[in-house]
Amino acid sequence: MPSKPFAFSAKAVIKDAQGRFLLLRRSASSKHNAGKWDLPGGKADVGEDLDQALIREVSQETTFTVRLERVLGAAESETPVKKIAYLIFEAHFESGEICLSDEHDAYAWVSPSRLDEYDICPQFRQFLKERIAGGGL
Amino acid sequence: MPSKPFAFSAKAVIKDAQGRFLLLRRSASSKHNAGKWDLPGGKADVGEDLDQALIREVSQETTFTVRLERVLGAAESETPVKKIAYLIFEAHFESGEICLSDEHDAYAWVSPSRLDEYDICPQFRQFLKERIAGGGL
Repeated sequence: MPSKPFAFSAKAVIKDAQGRFLLLRRSASSKHNAGKWDLPGGKADVGEDLDQALIREVSQETTFTVRLERVLGAAESETPVKKIAYLIFEAHFESGEICLSDEHDAYAWVSPSRLDEYDICPQFRQFLKERIAGGGL
Repeated sequence: MPSKPFAFSAKAVIKDAQGRFLLLRRSASSKHNAGKWDLPGGKADVGEDLDQALIREVSQETTFTVRLERVLGAAESETPVKKIAYLIFEAHFESGEICLSDEHDAYAWVSPSRLDEYDICPQFRQFLKERIAGGGL
């Protein structure tokens, strides 16, 4: 049985000086996970490397310029027709004032201790909880 | 300060019917980690998706045909000029008799309980130990 094809996405954990990290709320019109809180980032275009895709997506979604620091982990989600593999990076904020695109309707800088207050996209819940419990964020 | 560029690699955990997973020993002539045990897989070519790169690399390194099942995790390593981000998949063995390329000089099907007997590339040690301890392999 052939398996579903994979698509690839890169996501960023961007922290502020207080150790809070940025979540974006997906617009009500989103095809998947509408209204849930998401990490910044998104899919690579054809032929685009994941690091360049992530820097581009973060810029489109927030106007932030970021520098990718290190790989934090991975995650996976599934649609009826494909699987999505996520590579999650820690990104250093370099410049910008946040300005959201149509993809999101709210943003929040979230302390690790307040993560449970947010309805986070299921594919990132386990990752964020494990990394916070493990002290890696 | 600009950060080092990222390169991307995909690696496979391929298990046999006894729950052992495949490790390959890097040849003495390897540029990095010579003589250490590695997971099958390797870097994507320019414009190549990571899933296709992994299927190709596994075929080149072992002659195995595999089907990618799910994302297991991520890892990172660093050379003087770049960082390498690894996306690690569980892969299902479909067909083939193992035949190594010049990149490796030995292979082993390793039980999780015997992992400590192998000198594994440092970027995968933590991942493998954590996943074995967590029951995810």
